[in-house]
Amino acid sequence: MSTSNPPLVSPVSGIQVLRDLVSGATSRAEAVQRFADAHAAREAELGCFVVADYAAAAEHPGNGPLMGLPVGVKDIMDTADFPTAQGSPIHVGNRSRGDAAAVALTRRAGGAVVGKTVTTEFAFLHPAGTRNPWNTEHTPGGSSSGSAAAIAAGMLPFAFGTQTGGSIVRPAAYCGIAGYKPSYKLIPIQGVKPFSASLDTVGVFGATVADCAFFASLLTDRALSIPQTVAAPRIGICHTDQWENAEPRMQAAIETAAEAARAAGATVIDCPLPAMFAHAYDAHRVIQNFEAARALAWEYDTHREKLSKLLAATLEEGATITPEAYDGAGQTAKAARLQLMELFQSVDVLLTPSAEGPAPHGLGATGNPTFNKLWTLMGVPCVNVPGLVCDAGLPLGVQIVGSAMADQQTLAAAHWLQEQLHR
Amino acid sequence: MSTSNPPLVSPVSGIQVLRDLVSGATSRAEAVQRFADAHAAREAELGCFVVADYAAAAEHPGNGPLMGLPVGVKDIMDTADFPTAQGSPIHVGNRSRGDAAAVALTRRAGGAVVGKTVTTEFAFLHPAGTRNPWNTEHTPGGSSSGSAAAIAAGMLPFAFGTQTGGSIVRPAAYCGIAGYKPSYKLIPIQGVKPFSASLDTVGVFGATVADCAFFASLLTDRALSIPQTVAAPRIGICHTDQWENAEPRMQAAIETAAEAARAAGATVIDCPLPAMFAHAYDAHRVIQNFEAARALAWEYDTHREKLSKLLAATLEEGATITPEAYDGAGQTAKAARLQLMELFQSVDVLLTPSAEGPAPHGLGATGNPTFNKLWTLMGVPCVNVPGLVCDAGLPLGVQIVGSAMADQQTLAAAHWLQEQLHR
Repeated sequence: MSTSNPPLVSPVSGIQVLRDLVSGATSRAEAVQRFADAHAAREAELGCFVVADYAAAAEHPGNGPLMGLPVGVKDIMDTADFPTAQGSPIHVGNRSRGDAAAVALTRRAGGAVVGKTVTTEFAFLHPAGTRNPWNTEHTPGGSSSGSAAAIAAGMLPFAFGTQTGGSIVRPAAYCGIAGYKPSYKLIPIQGVKPFSASLDTVGVFGATVADCAFFASLLTDRALSIPQTVAAPRIGICHTDQWENAEPRMQAAIETAAEAARAAGATVIDCPLPAMFAHAYDAHRVIQNFEAARALAWEYDTHREKLSKLLAATLEEGATITPEAYDGAGQTAKAARLQLMELFQSVDVLLTPSAEGPAPHGLGATGNPTFNKLWTLMGVPCVNVPGLVCDAGLPLGVQIVGSAMADQQTLAAAHWLQEQLHR
Repeated sequence: MSTSNPPLVSPVSGIQVLRDLVSGATSRAEAVQRFADAHAAREAELGCFVVADYAAAAEHPGNGPLMGLPVGVKDIMDTADFPTAQGSPIHVGNRSRGDAAAVALTRRAGGAVVGKTVTTEFAFLHPAGTRNPWNTEHTPGGSSSGSAAAIAAGMLPFAFGTQTGGSIVRPAAYCGIAGYKPSYKLIPIQGVKPFSASLDTVGVFGATVADCAFFASLLTDRALSIPQTVAAPRIGICHTDQWENAEPRMQAAIETAAEAARAAGATVIDCPLPAMFAHAYDAHRVIQNFEAARALAWEYDTHREKLSKLLAATLEEGATITPEAYDGAGQTAKAARLQLMELFQSVDVLLTPSAEGPAPHGLGATGNPTFNKLWTLMGVPCVNVPGLVCDAGLPLGVQIVGSAMADQQTLAAAHWLQEQLHR
């Protein structure tokens, strides 16, 4: 494994650009142009955006902590100025009257919304054509495909994703960037097309963990930014019941990350999950599909022929789930959350794969959320830590998972680990 | 107190109409015309609808369990065929691409959406002009003003409301009809304008508790309909910390209901709340205003001059609440929910006021959700039981509150009490 990026994969740290603006090392015009140039250079090849307009950033007054830097918004989030097609032909040209709450908060913080990034159909699994900047024959992951690829290609310093299964952590891992899925409800969800309300979570992408933490701190008014010094965390390696689905190179990546952490002074112990977590894993599907069958009832009843086969079948399966089975899955999830709180008595964070391996070849699928679904169901903060690259020249992401609402500590630990991987 | 309605207040039981349709005692055309006639007779005076089109019901094929009967949809819920103005000049003419989930499920069950009912501004407290069918100089309550008044005036057999504070139970009480706020998330919320995501709950109105239960059973696929025979429940009289805010005639109404229940064989005991519930009551405001300040960020930032003073001030107050205070309120609510579960070990349901008294005089305010906010925060099922009328000729609603997710039992107990009040 190495840590070198191919020449065209050059994510740009928004924090660094803001520092350069404050110090005068760069001008706002130059900073914005740099992102616009990256967009001009690779957008035709990668297909990150449904619609983009960098003039929004060029003309921004540059006030607020984001100083008018470009922000990309996943196309299932309402924007007053751009249409929101939700990755579906049913909603092409759909215009909302206002901004999603997270978008309004972005503008309040001085961010310039420069476009809508490609999402899979309703943020589920049917792919939408975006390519991985590291190797365009590979998927960037999904469902937040466009945001992750755009950050990796240096087109944006900050972008939004959402995660219901693994739609933030997985594309971040495949694209070699930082992705942060916060604790459930930490960033407001209002104005985001719902799929499964108990799981849908707004999160962010950036070049580094610190970029994600900084952006999220502005959206939440919470002290999430990474402090100057971060102590070595207590890390639990969590193989989960899905470990056998991890490719050998991913299993090796977890070992590499654990060794780097140990070498830098972290306590690293094995942290097996209690047996009942296998049921919790299964509960994710039950809750997701039951809720999606209802949330997308209008689309199914009136435009079934415009849904992908995969989504239509998922909604049909969801319609067969009884309220009793759904309630039972909710009870299982609740019990697992309580057990997980106990686990975090002995470690600060868990280290676990972000995905089964690097980005799979081909654009016909976006990879599997195997290593994400349980944590989304638990509502706990998850961060993809970039830094490792496999022999095939593709990034291998490792995931830091924290306790519910311990987002500050989780981001700090993920940042700390990222620093060790980059040494 | 009496139980006679003034001549123009004649809610129509949807269940009874459906029975008459099945038996052939009435035709679909006659049934629909009856509701349309009531609308034609009193809409100009009462102002229940933003837009109405009874042709939708006249032309309906009449399939599904609702057989094409008219349904009214609160104007903060998306509909593909009618605009959704959310009670705000900011959103006048706003058209959504599809239906809210609950609306799509209504159509799936054979309901004919005949219009959008008046809501207060974003379902908060600023009134919108609807009048109380019992006495047009009195408020019908809010925020689901139009739905409640339309049911009371016999314009609709079924209608939607939403409750964040007391927006279903209070207007149902003021209008002398049944109103059912389900357990949190029981009816899907997708496509409903959010105010406070932790509190916002979709519910229904009908002439009787059984009508509400029947309609909700179709929306949820849950066995909520009232069984043939219902045993006398164990009832706890819950004065709450707000008892001194109840008018003497409301205090007397609770005693009347308790005596009727006792006389019919119910166990009725006093059920004081543990002291910590005073804090839980306060937590409602903190959670609601913190979340509203974020959910309505776009409206506040771009159209502040079009917000009512009351709402603008509420959003400004919400913006001053720290995440720590918000998290603390959430913890308080969680602790209270656990204590409430224990309370329901000894009783099936609680009996408590639906409002401070009958509908207040004047249209400048919609009354207080004093006796609703705690239960909304607890996420438990609440039903306004109609039947009592005060000396001033206005209805006095009493409230049945059940344990979380015990909606079937709660509705059955409310139905049982309603039967006793009508004897």
